[in-house]
Amino acid sequence: MLGDATGIGPEVAVKALAAGPLPGARVVLFANRRVLALGEREAGTTLPVRPRSGLDGLDETDDAVPLIELANADPAVLRRGAVNPVSGRIVGETLMRMIDEALAGRLDAVCFAPLNKKAPHDGGFRYHDEHRMFAALTRHQGFFGEMNVIPAFSTFRVTSHVSLREALEMITPSRITAAVELADGTLTRMLGRRPSLSVAAVNPHVGENGPFGRDEIEIIAPTLETLPARGIDCEGPIPADVIFLRARAGAFDDQVARYHDRGQIATRLPGFNQGVAVTAGLHVVFTTPAHGTAFDIAGKGVADPGAMRRPLELAAPLARRAA
Amino acid sequence: MLGDATGIGPEVAVKALAAGPLPGARVVLFANRRVLALGEREAGTTLPVRPRSGLDGLDETDDAVPLIELANADPAVLRRGAVNPVSGRIVGETLMRMIDEALAGRLDAVCFAPLNKKAPHDGGFRYHDEHRMFAALTRHQGFFGEMNVIPAFSTFRVTSHVSLREALEMITPSRITAAVELADGTLTRMLGRRPSLSVAAVNPHVGENGPFGRDEIEIIAPTLETLPARGIDCEGPIPADVIFLRARAGAFDDQVARYHDRGQIATRLPGFNQGVAVTAGLHVVFTTPAHGTAFDIAGKGVADPGAMRRPLELAAPLARRAA
Repeated sequence: MLGDATGIGPEVAVKALAAGPLPGARVVLFANRRVLALGEREAGTTLPVRPRSGLDGLDETDDAVPLIELANADPAVLRRGAVNPVSGRIVGETLMRMIDEALAGRLDAVCFAPLNKKAPHDGGFRYHDEHRMFAALTRHQGFFGEMNVIPAFSTFRVTSHVSLREALEMITPSRITAAVELADGTLTRMLGRRPSLSVAAVNPHVGENGPFGRDEIEIIAPTLETLPARGIDCEGPIPADVIFLRARAGAFDDQVARYHDRGQIATRLPGFNQGVAVTAGLHVVFTTPAHGTAFDIAGKGVADPGAMRRPLELAAPLARRAA
Repeated sequence: MLGDATGIGPEVAVKALAAGPLPGARVVLFANRRVLALGEREAGTTLPVRPRSGLDGLDETDDAVPLIELANADPAVLRRGAVNPVSGRIVGETLMRMIDEALAGRLDAVCFAPLNKKAPHDGGFRYHDEHRMFAALTRHQGFFGEMNVIPAFSTFRVTSHVSLREALEMITPSRITAAVELADGTLTRMLGRRPSLSVAAVNPHVGENGPFGRDEIEIIAPTLETLPARGIDCEGPIPADVIFLRARAGAFDDQVARYHDRGQIATRLPGFNQGVAVTAGLHVVFTTPAHGTAFDIAGKGVADPGAMRRPLELAAPLARRAA
């Protein structure tokens, strides 16, 4: 879907889809035709589409992108470059329609162009964040979480959108195990083999054997000792300021970061243009670029579609063998 | 000084000093002659030195490096590539001698090659870390801290070598103010002008106005509001996963990181070879490379001296106008 029509979503989505076929994937576009036209104008290209009323009986030999048209948007009333609750409502409705198709078995993954995180909330989709929205709409029970993918490695989180104080209380054996299992399962699908994982310490210098914190001694290390019996290859706890250097050097496929900012600093610094955010662990796979709506350049036709192409490419291997 | 003789210190120190004169600085070497000879052998070069008994009456026209010889080491008994309490004691004694010279007004800065952090402790210098050792030996009262310098920006810390739980309790108005004032004063000396500073949030998304944490609303923002009246240019709180991207793009001279790992991830990822660690806020300036003793390549002659040259170059501007 084209993301929030107030930002660069329609433009980068058209550019990314126009860049050529996606190996192993069949793309269907869920969009309002006028928002698509706006994206085509800004992208300076036309996307061959085939309007359809539903997903049954798709013609596999047709090169045009099937378009499920949603009559939910009038771009003329959506001011570019600003948070808009109407646009947020449209984003929420479009995602809900796609999730319904996925739950009915007709879609394997949902890839979305950047959306403003505040807009869906203002437009009536009152969830803590988009990941919890996806979990609620897919009626998910159990652990799930945001995964961040850059070419060198991926990160998963034991905790995410909570205060750092609360995050510390949430570092428990059961959450650590759940996050590592999520990383193991997701990366096995993505890589086609069992991954090599690592878990970061929570305290500086891994607590320096106690004086800088005891979480590693009392919680993290004993939990990690239980993993080899489950066939999981996971090293740790490793100092948080060393783990990403080793990962970049190729030591691991993944880090399980202890909390939000740490993993984010490490995956964002190597280059915003390369990152993909995934909601992992749900029945449906969700992928999106790591960057946002870029209101400052919305409507100018200068947005780089590189980061939009990657979540499209990643959706297929992530979904292929999803439960 | 040549750092811990068990690591790459002597080698990189010789290489860095042999790379040419240091503008605005006059270098004096404090070393055992046999450890220096070991460094010269591994560096594959000879350093012209002039042995002296003290620092009075240095000949400014002499191109040789004045050598204050310390008869405290026998490299023959120090095994390379392993933590050694004897070497740690020698490191501590050498630094103490240099600090005494500095306190007597005969040295402006102490630059040291990498030392193993555990060795001085095992050798009888039982301090929490090397920064607290320097503070104690210089009889410092008040706030001080580690500063990390890479070409793009520098970081200071409100908290450092404590557990993350303890760090959260230490984020107080007085510590934030002290850290920002330390950054302001130190960078004014280093850059020759007042710096542009920023302070990171402690919670994800700056607490999202409350639900992800209230430290920003209750402590950080009100503290930062008091800074302009002191003539300090400081923006914040800024999300920790955005602040380093903006800094790298040139928005700030400095970040005040909320705790150890965050700043370290950001300054280490761009490249270990470029970092300098400074103990800032003491009467004497201390500089050292960000990397360690590199036991895995000690004695092999292959160490890159780039990171040893930078703390030598940085010592002079940091010390020039020190209080």
